[in-house]
Amino acid sequence: MAEVIDGRKVAAKLDEQTKAEVDALVAAGGPRPGLTVILVGDDGASQVYVRRKIKGCEKVGIRSSEHRLPADTTQDELLALIDQLNHDPDVHGILCQVPLPAHIDTRTVLGAISPEKDVDGFHPVNVGRLSTGTGGIVPCTPLGIMLLLESVVDDFVGKDAVVIGKSNIVGKPVALLLLDRECTVTVTHIYTENLPEIAAKADIIVAAAGAPELVKGSWVKPGAVVIDVGITRIMGEDGKEKLVGDVKFDEVQHAKAVTPVPGGVGPMTIACLLHNTVQAAKTISEAKAPNGDSDYRDAPDRSLIYGEGASLD
Amino acid sequence: MAEVIDGRKVAAKLDEQTKAEVDALVAAGGPRPGLTVILVGDDGASQVYVRRKIKGCEKVGIRSSEHRLPADTTQDELLALIDQLNHDPDVHGILCQVPLPAHIDTRTVLGAISPEKDVDGFHPVNVGRLSTGTGGIVPCTPLGIMLLLESVVDDFVGKDAVVIGKSNIVGKPVALLLLDRECTVTVTHIYTENLPEIAAKADIIVAAAGAPELVKGSWVKPGAVVIDVGITRIMGEDGKEKLVGDVKFDEVQHAKAVTPVPGGVGPMTIACLLHNTVQAAKTISEAKAPNGDSDYRDAPDRSLIYGEGASLD
Repeated sequence: MAEVIDGRKVAAKLDEQTKAEVDALVAAGGPRPGLTVILVGDDGASQVYVRRKIKGCEKVGIRSSEHRLPADTTQDELLALIDQLNHDPDVHGILCQVPLPAHIDTRTVLGAISPEKDVDGFHPVNVGRLSTGTGGIVPCTPLGIMLLLESVVDDFVGKDAVVIGKSNIVGKPVALLLLDRECTVTVTHIYTENLPEIAAKADIIVAAAGAPELVKGSWVKPGAVVIDVGITRIMGEDGKEKLVGDVKFDEVQHAKAVTPVPGGVGPMTIACLLHNTVQAAKTISEAKAPNGDSDYRDAPDRSLIYGEGASLD
Repeated sequence: MAEVIDGRKVAAKLDEQTKAEVDALVAAGGPRPGLTVILVGDDGASQVYVRRKIKGCEKVGIRSSEHRLPADTTQDELLALIDQLNHDPDVHGILCQVPLPAHIDTRTVLGAISPEKDVDGFHPVNVGRLSTGTGGIVPCTPLGIMLLLESVVDDFVGKDAVVIGKSNIVGKPVALLLLDRECTVTVTHIYTENLPEIAAKADIIVAAAGAPELVKGSWVKPGAVVIDVGITRIMGEDGKEKLVGDVKFDEVQHAKAVTPVPGGVGPMTIACLLHNTVQAAKTISEAKAPNGDSDYRDAPDRSLIYGEGASLD
């Protein structure tokens, strides 16, 4: 039976570490990290996400604030708010919840957030730094995926990794992070012709296609590690709605380890956002150049997450 | 026999197109594109490269200027010059020749060049835009590789592409550009365990490992297209020095097409620099936001390079 990677447990350990870092920072006379969330309009799902993020802040001792703007806010008004927050010394992380209303250009808005406060890691400067392995803020979902992988993979060097899906927010950044760990990385997508065969050679599969139960048992070699990033609501055979991932979970029990849906990648996202906020607060308060040599791998203290000296394999 | 892709010929066609664009821009009352090259110290090879770039400018009608600074120039002095050039309306492209002296932090200096004048495409913002496929300036060697590929590949969609080497200036950007063209992309490197087998499945191989004659005939499947980015000076069996690439050229005659070394990728680099300078001048003079929706593929006019209606396959 495959090990089921418990995303909630890994996320809780990361939260513990984040809380300890906040406490240490404040005890040392540093600032209490602050996250500001901007929500434009009244999208129901966005409201739920924002509430969870604010609640997460409370749990680890991050100061949070929320700007709720009406749906008819102009782009210039939103940019003015971001400019003000960029200059606010008490704000270390700025998160502008997407999707934004159609009259606002998302790329312009996300590009206006100061790179060192861009805790979502979507600013071109952070994307560029991730691409070149030169520090910067790593987007939450890819960072969460790497931490889940690290909980079960001892040595990444030379492993064959296959990423299914090439989105800007998951597929491409995960591929670059895996390359940074010296994996041989294949990025596949809707135009890939022999995907089952390619996947079946992988030591690591990251399924981020958004295609329910795309990855069958025969696509997974015995002993592989499978991270399932997809989450889709479908109608089950019993006529009830259920959430499924991109992987046919029941068919991959010959894998070494697999993430469940829900309870795998999902819970990591907010924990990584909180982690990023604290890192941003440290970077800003140390007046450390944002293009410093920090590496995302230096940031989370593995021993705190997985236990001192614990074998990760 | 494999078609030998003549980089000099493709570069000459791109130069013709660039010259025509310069003429059209000036005729329409726009600015004459201007490139400024900064050279710190007296590295011999760098001097040769800079001279070639300046000469290339003359050929296509780009105004060029050169700043030669002594080897003991401080980082602050260099940054002050870049700041001045960033604000100079007659300068559309700024190129700071590397390597820089050891007391200067290359990343800081290259990151100080305004992204829209960064004709080398090394600024994190341009790297990020390339990663997300959202415009920006594409670095010269990767752009040259794509143009050579386009001269012999009709349809990239679904092709298996293998990139050997994961450097920030060639391997990673080429991989992202191939992904953008809907190839299935595998990035391999020194830690890849079964490279011959992986390469042997590829429709497209881009060899950028800097390892002389690494790629043997048996690594290349019949009909593949091979781009050789390596260039190393070795001692031949006859006791004379010679330049070789990363591919055993004589052994891959069953390929569909292959670039020679020298005369393949090399000649494309300066032609792409000149092309980038004109694109930068256009972007700046049109006061087009640098995060506009332009795509590098829109920029070079294929019909000019390869002939109107010519089959590329």
